[in-house]
Amino acid sequence: MSAPTSRPVLPLRPEIVGVAPYGAPQLDVPYLLNVNENPYAPAPDVVEDIARDVASAAATLNRYPDRDFLALREDLAAYLATESGVTLAPEQLWAANGSNEVMLHLLQAFGGPGRTAVSFAPTYSMYPEYARATSTTWVEGRRAEDFSLDTAAVAAMVAAEQPSVVLLASPNNPTGTALPCETVEAVLAAAAGVPGGCVVVVDEAYGEFRRTGTPSALELLPAHPNLAVSRTMSKAFGLAGARLGYLAAAPALVDALRVVRLPYHLSAVTQAVARAALRHAPALMAQVGSLRDERDALVVWLRERGLTVADSDANFVLFGLFDDRHAVWQGLLDRGVLIREVGPPGWLRVSVGTPEETAAFKDALVEVAAL
Amino acid sequence: MSAPTSRPVLPLRPEIVGVAPYGAPQLDVPYLLNVNENPYAPAPDVVEDIARDVASAAATLNRYPDRDFLALREDLAAYLATESGVTLAPEQLWAANGSNEVMLHLLQAFGGPGRTAVSFAPTYSMYPEYARATSTTWVEGRRAEDFSLDTAAVAAMVAAEQPSVVLLASPNNPTGTALPCETVEAVLAAAAGVPGGCVVVVDEAYGEFRRTGTPSALELLPAHPNLAVSRTMSKAFGLAGARLGYLAAAPALVDALRVVRLPYHLSAVTQAVARAALRHAPALMAQVGSLRDERDALVVWLRERGLTVADSDANFVLFGLFDDRHAVWQGLLDRGVLIREVGPPGWLRVSVGTPEETAAFKDALVEVAAL
Repeated sequence: MSAPTSRPVLPLRPEIVGVAPYGAPQLDVPYLLNVNENPYAPAPDVVEDIARDVASAAATLNRYPDRDFLALREDLAAYLATESGVTLAPEQLWAANGSNEVMLHLLQAFGGPGRTAVSFAPTYSMYPEYARATSTTWVEGRRAEDFSLDTAAVAAMVAAEQPSVVLLASPNNPTGTALPCETVEAVLAAAAGVPGGCVVVVDEAYGEFRRTGTPSALELLPAHPNLAVSRTMSKAFGLAGARLGYLAAAPALVDALRVVRLPYHLSAVTQAVARAALRHAPALMAQVGSLRDERDALVVWLRERGLTVADSDANFVLFGLFDDRHAVWQGLLDRGVLIREVGPPGWLRVSVGTPEETAAFKDALVEVAAL
Repeated sequence: MSAPTSRPVLPLRPEIVGVAPYGAPQLDVPYLLNVNENPYAPAPDVVEDIARDVASAAATLNRYPDRDFLALREDLAAYLATESGVTLAPEQLWAANGSNEVMLHLLQAFGGPGRTAVSFAPTYSMYPEYARATSTTWVEGRRAEDFSLDTAAVAAMVAAEQPSVVLLASPNNPTGTALPCETVEAVLAAAAGVPGGCVVVVDEAYGEFRRTGTPSALELLPAHPNLAVSRTMSKAFGLAGARLGYLAAAPALVDALRVVRLPYHLSAVTQAVARAALRHAPALMAQVGSLRDERDALVVWLRERGLTVADSDANFVLFGLFDDRHAVWQGLLDRGVLIREVGPPGWLRVSVGTPEETAAFKDALVEVAAL
């Protein structure tokens, strides 16, 4: 018997062998319309408040942060009450370093080996990564041609797969499609038939951009202890760099997340930044209003030029169809406009920018696509 | 066939049913010597720098942070070169929201279902939680009576369990015991015999407090591509509230962590806070020096009073032995001094505080234990 001549040095999990790190290209071009950031930098008064509150927090940074961040949870509940008209107790709120970590906590609590999470494509491309990170089996159904959810198909999928988690984005990324409450209720009814229990997660990362009359799944929380509605401060609050995602759910569901979270996951600084920004919610929501107007105008403009555009309740627009979408994407990039090549074949996604950014995008698209 | 009358509402993972969230009690008493925090709050010039740099970062918080935080990794490499004399490339550094998340990334990359991680008790009580979070099998051996590692026992354990990860704390929590390089090298030799590969993690959360002449496992990195040495800014830098843990390893090992991390896990604010504090490393290391002196004096004092004290290379001291340690712990708490009831039966752990805090602890202990 001879020893192997070359042992594997690192015991990489099989699932990650040859996998590249996730992420859109971070390129240095004039117009960044590719990752659905809020184009408006925090206003000077927001920056001042953040700096002052961080200075205050910094004076005691030698101590661990409040593990349960109750003050932040109170502020988030107050904000959601104003934004959505839904009254929640602080014990119904949870937060983490971005929605990514919120989702990880959900799958750590309710997924895991031998369990299944399902979603419906086209949808957010990070979802399978949460499943992989928690060794949860990932099963993906399809949305309808118009990117809505066919509730009969969802019910059939839930009955067949018996998932412990159903993950729905509303407004959906990359399509912009919001789900009516009746659809979410139909999914909840299907979930109620899973013998072991099933959590339905509605990812409302772009919830604040929904059009007037579009409901939030937050309204369904009182009647559904297995519903979780996630939000983020990355988009509406223009805080993608601060990493603050959160969710609302029944207290028992939040308690499960408290068990799986690693202690002190949310820094005292992050808590201070989020609370400072939340005090500026009225001004920031006015800004969201102007982004919604800009979005609606962009949809109209694209349709007037003969393009197909998905209805959008988000701060981005999915449009097409192009025989060679990569050529269009590259043509835009050559003109300094970075958008995202994502979604079903033929479609492209552009984030809603400032009026100047949108104008640059339009000018470039007219040239590239010969509109 | 009748439907079940009471379905489980939430599909809790079996491992977390009935589990309470991890964490030491957060009590409001005058002397907090229970969680090994640095007793010195950031100095005014550090606070000022943090506030200024966060204000600068806040002005672009609408954008996602640098996913790969290369500037921070450069600064961490420069710091370690000064602190330990070991030269590292930025590609050899990794960071996350506390050592907790660094360890999670390690087990997400190299652990998982069907794999085993081993450690040797008494040691840090969070380790099994990382294993649970990643569905990694957790096996715990024992340290020797004097809290050192018996390398023959470790080799036997590694041969028997074929772990993909071996997790060692040095200085160890809660005992304060540092591992000689020869011990770590013996573990690395045992790990080399695992056919699928095995990563050895040396957790140096308290590394900066090691006594003169005690080596860092960082010195072993050039020869060992399967070694990871983790550090934190929570302790020596007095930044427990900022949540910045990091590690050094071969570039290929760090690349694996880049695959499992969820994108943008480290906020632009956290990056700014850490970089600001790193610029003050010389002053902070002087403070570490005084804490080491305070620690050594406390060890002498306790021994002079007839107590048994474990040699400590950390910013805490494990002492005993008490027939009823809980009574001693409670007696101290009644006098406003919170320490930690942790470690093998009969032992207690106290963090090294300011001279005033240490004096309060001594006074209370003299009363409670009738020294």
